[in-house]
Amino acid sequence: MIVVMQPKATPEQVRHVMDRVEEMGLAPHVIQGTERTVVACVGDERLKSAERLAVAPGVEKVIPVLARYKIASREARPEPTVIPLGTGSVGADRVALIAGPCAVEDRASLLEIAAAVREAGAVGLRGGAFKPRTDPYAFQGLAEQGLEFLAEAREATGLAIVTEVVAPEHVPLVARYADVLQVGTRNMQNFALLAAVGGAAKPVLLKRGMSATLEEFLLAAEYVLACGNKQVILCERGIRTFERATRFTFSVAAIPALKHMTHLPVIADPSHATGRADLVEPVSRAAVAAGADGLLLEVHPDPENALVDGAQSITPEAFGRLVASCRKVAEAVGRSL
Amino acid sequence: MIVVMQPKATPEQVRHVMDRVEEMGLAPHVIQGTERTVVACVGDERLKSAERLAVAPGVEKVIPVLARYKIASREARPEPTVIPLGTGSVGADRVALIAGPCAVEDRASLLEIAAAVREAGAVGLRGGAFKPRTDPYAFQGLAEQGLEFLAEAREATGLAIVTEVVAPEHVPLVARYADVLQVGTRNMQNFALLAAVGGAAKPVLLKRGMSATLEEFLLAAEYVLACGNKQVILCERGIRTFERATRFTFSVAAIPALKHMTHLPVIADPSHATGRADLVEPVSRAAVAAGADGLLLEVHPDPENALVDGAQSITPEAFGRLVASCRKVAEAVGRSL
Amino acid sequence: MIVVMQPKATPEQVRHVMDRVEEMGLAPHVIQGTERTVVACVGDERLKSAERLAVAPGVEKVIPVLARYKIASREARPEPTVIPLGTGSVGADRVALIAGPCAVEDRASLLEIAAAVREAGAVGLRGGAFKPRTDPYAFQGLAEQGLEFLAEAREATGLAIVTEVVAPEHVPLVARYADVLQVGTRNMQNFALLAAVGGAAKPVLLKRGMSATLEEFLLAAEYVLACGNKQVILCERGIRTFERATRFTFSVAAIPALKHMTHLPVIADPSHATGRADLVEPVSRAAVAAGADGLLLEVHPDPENALVDGAQSITPEAFGRLVASCRKVAEAVGRSL
Amino acid sequence: MIVVMQPKATPEQVRHVMDRVEEMGLAPHVIQGTERTVVACVGDERLKSAERLAVAPGVEKVIPVLARYKIASREARPEPTVIPLGTGSVGADRVALIAGPCAVEDRASLLEIAAAVREAGAVGLRGGAFKPRTDPYAFQGLAEQGLEFLAEAREATGLAIVTEVVAPEHVPLVARYADVLQVGTRNMQNFALLAAVGGAAKPVLLKRGMSATLEEFLLAAEYVLACGNKQVILCERGIRTFERATRFTFSVAAIPALKHMTHLPVIADPSHATGRADLVEPVSRAAVAAGADGLLLEVHPDPENALVDGAQSITPEAFGRLVASCRKVAEAVGRSL
Repeated sequence: MIVVMQPKATPEQVRHVMDRVEEMGLAPHVIQGTERTVVACVGDERLKSAERLAVAPGVEKVIPVLARYKIASREARPEPTVIPLGTGSVGADRVALIAGPCAVEDRASLLEIAAAVREAGAVGLRGGAFKPRTDPYAFQGLAEQGLEFLAEAREATGLAIVTEVVAPEHVPLVARYADVLQVGTRNMQNFALLAAVGGAAKPVLLKRGMSATLEEFLLAAEYVLACGNKQVILCERGIRTFERATRFTFSVAAIPALKHMTHLPVIADPSHATGRADLVEPVSRAAVAAGADGLLLEVHPDPENALVDGAQSITPEAFGRLVASCRKVAEAVGRSL
Repeated sequence: MIVVMQPKATPEQVRHVMDRVEEMGLAPHVIQGTERTVVACVGDERLKSAERLAVAPGVEKVIPVLARYKIASREARPEPTVIPLGTGSVGADRVALIAGPCAVEDRASLLEIAAAVREAGAVGLRGGAFKPRTDPYAFQGLAEQGLEFLAEAREATGLAIVTEVVAPEHVPLVARYADVLQVGTRNMQNFALLAAVGGAAKPVLLKRGMSATLEEFLLAAEYVLACGNKQVILCERGIRTFERATRFTFSVAAIPALKHMTHLPVIADPSHATGRADLVEPVSRAAVAAGADGLLLEVHPDPENALVDGAQSITPEAFGRLVASCRKVAEAVGRSL
Repeated sequence: MIVVMQPKATPEQVRHVMDRVEEMGLAPHVIQGTERTVVACVGDERLKSAERLAVAPGVEKVIPVLARYKIASREARPEPTVIPLGTGSVGADRVALIAGPCAVEDRASLLEIAAAVREAGAVGLRGGAFKPRTDPYAFQGLAEQGLEFLAEAREATGLAIVTEVVAPEHVPLVARYADVLQVGTRNMQNFALLAAVGGAAKPVLLKRGMSATLEEFLLAAEYVLACGNKQVILCERGIRTFERATRFTFSVAAIPALKHMTHLPVIADPSHATGRADLVEPVSRAAVAAGADGLLLEVHPDPENALVDGAQSITPEAFGRLVASCRKVAEAVGRSL
Repeated sequence: MIVVMQPKATPEQVRHVMDRVEEMGLAPHVIQGTERTVVACVGDERLKSAERLAVAPGVEKVIPVLARYKIASREARPEPTVIPLGTGSVGADRVALIAGPCAVEDRASLLEIAAAVREAGAVGLRGGAFKPRTDPYAFQGLAEQGLEFLAEAREATGLAIVTEVVAPEHVPLVARYADVLQVGTRNMQNFALLAAVGGAAKPVLLKRGMSATLEEFLLAAEYVLACGNKQVILCERGIRTFERATRFTFSVAAIPALKHMTHLPVIADPSHATGRADLVEPVSRAAVAAGADGLLLEVHPDPENALVDGAQSITPEAFGRLVASCRKVAEAVGRSL
């Protein structure tokens, strides 16, 4: 941590900051610059509420040096975390495909989609039983019945079940049926929920908050890790920007940037990121080219009649074509799919 | 809803869209333009998942006409909603002041702050007992003991207690102590929590999500209203933008814009919006000048030692000055404070 | 400047950084932290291209300490800069009003508007003779004839003329007619234009780029100042964010934040910021309450027939009401208008 | 264009809107909805300043139906525009590589870089002779001497010269030396400059404004096209968002989205988009996988000593590796490189 003093800071003010820094258990080093005095603080600043030094008299600003996540960092664990998923895994050489409808609508269509995506190469089946909807008048999901249908689809296909949990008290129920607990973008900083999935025995798929920085994203992952659950899959799903040609702005650079920062696997959700079926395939190819460990995709046999997010769902046929083209890209970057 | 067809859409594709629109219970009107055919749909489009028409063959885009919130709209209720708060109210002529520490730290300091802000003119006491923190290693709050301290402060001062609830299962507990249930910016789209506070008998202070549009903000309020709780206070607290000179970007225009859209009271949180103690007073004045029904402010006797958000807390003395200057501005715009 | 080394940086890499820092004429101070070594660099880092140290072996990141503007800074000049404007000034106690049509459309209407805004209290007349339009098929302005009409309006009213210049080669022409040269938001980093107005003998009204940080805004002002023109008026006019309820997001906190950073006067443009006539008055009040030194407003007698930006123009009657309410707010904050 | 009336709009207000629409040469169609009346307007709305209808009495909002660009649209020209570039072209099957230093620094290093990138497969040489810098104290370029060095490098290598022009009056000079005139992100809406390059006989490489929507980007291209220059290359170079882990946010989805909207070729600039040498290769692969027609890359033999943008420059060796890996990706998506 670096404390930058104001140009006219007095020696007493510098002394006061040094005292405070020492009270925090850090060692202050004063450097007299030509225009500013700075106090460099040595020690683990992550455990301190250092920001409050910003209001000490004579302080201009406080600049943190260390990222605030630890367990999630590459430094803490140089080798990549690999998380088993159905017949495959996430984080190893093979790019993992997780596909399915946005929401579980009925038993028959779910089984049909599951068989189709399995056939095309998926290792995971996605589908929401509890749907957090922006619009209170929209379809909210089938709840436990949806989970039962998902479990049945697993029986039939061997696909791992990835489904969202939206409230801490649902975690035991969802964990009974699901293989991976998904935390949605609107809940990335729902700390009660992060604590609940952090105590579960199933891997967590954590979606990036739509306005979360990469550091905040890793701090949310850290929350889960610190609660004891070491199996966290990160998912870039687009951030909110001024652009409206796509629903969100997919940050493809976030994939390699995260890989530098953390050992956790990173997957991509081109369906939610773009909100447009016609862009799902090129963005999927881009994600794989940039090093994504997996893809999370919305597939529906009849997007026009999908109860949720039809505009961004692709048909099983389109999914088959997407898999074929992404496989070539995966091979071009030294991986399989 | 307006469905815009692609330039080369066939008559069959237009017919198909009309059929779909009729299946939704809406009446389609076809207009042949010089470059595009559009299908205007008459009826209450809010109850339909109209977006999926975007994937019908030959469709270029679907443009909604109506905002998707209803109960929250000015149209549904032209007169303003006024919500009682301690010895005052929010939404009437007098601008309501709610002030206190970010987090409840201990009994003595809370009582001291409560007395000071009461003296300066506040009608509500804010203070977090459950703190959702981005950083898993930061102070998380005193939980029920914090609520007890808050209740004691109410006894001593008559201030209404405004405190955050972070999980659906905490709602009954918090509602037992608090006068207003606060839903934080990171939970604005935590629909399980919205449903829980929607079922409570206490008013809800709903903070704008840091990346929520005004329409999404009102849809979150609608969620609470649709669950039966008609007492929702909206709070502009800054949105996330590229600017870093302030912690968030306070959108002062959101205040009058919301007033056009909804009958619900709108307050402002200059402390979180700016993250800088030196900007709290001018931004508070601006909020009052723009028509805010109240201010939510962080006050701490010793910001340098605050456990949470010290950098944005002001002292009771500074709060007194702020109240004096905001009172003049309130009077300049025909209100009191 | 602080150079943060990677956790496994070698002594040779640290040595190499120190050598480079010395080559730049700065003095390096090495601090061995518990997790990182940092090299604090003393001297005027603003003249160096220090960022390239980021690619030196073993370097994790480079953190600048000093803002890169100098002449524009409060440090360089603690007292506020006051710029004469017609019968008044910008930057002194009285809040300056600059009003007029977005574009100069014809002689008669310009003279009518000028008389009306003068009567209501304006000291400056705005109006574009050269209109930079996003849309190549939109009205582009009257050019020199527009300037002549503006000069005639000055003769008739005593109002100072504020008009935009869009190309370096137009600067002599526009400076011949205008009292203040406006640089628009889309040209804030048009450095050829900044250099040209920096060499002119007329004050410059510099609008904030719609995606410029405050530091970048002040660097653009610095560009003009460094070219010799010391009369720069800064104008907050809204930044681009995800919100679409308003055309841009007016950052009211930017006003007091800039006042801390610089001695230059800061005015606000609520018309372009909101793009909505119904929000211009409340946002104007907010700007004055936050400390703005002036307001730049679009006024048109018949907004429905305005050739440019009708949706955000207010009528002379509405302007009169705005002036009355802003005057009360100005007085509430210890100023006049 | 769709005009949505307020819920309580009177028949006279609707009549007034219809009259105005007719005055614009459009045909109004009134549709009585259950909650709103809308007026659908048939005809070419692009030539009208339709937005001003938003201030007509009783109007709630105006929704445009058509995009405002015409010549740039796919509809106007279904087949892709292919622009010759040195020994190759942009917009055809082969992905074009344009590489070189950010700024031309001296003759020797430029010739060295040119030879190296030619050897690795580039068809174009980039390098700035006029540098628009945010910081007035930074290196501003060698001007005409830089252009001479570039021309010499073309002689030596056969590479096409791509260089930025920053002021309208420089266009003839730069066009004398360069093969492609680059318009930078900060000048995307410098309409005087767009008009100047629109009148030149050389292709234009237009960089996306850092806060420009795709529609605004195409309107800027339309400006150039409307001035008579049909050879415009679009370049996605990252947009400004809240994220700071990368300098800008590279929008990979913009590539296929633009391809749907326009016939113009689309290239990518991973160097400026990320600002980080370590992310240039993965983002380049992603751009190619998403369908980019070319890459614009910063290459410098000694990034640590580059005068400009060293942090994002890669060495010729790294460029060679990037070309090899991007070539495989290009082949995976059915193209060459």
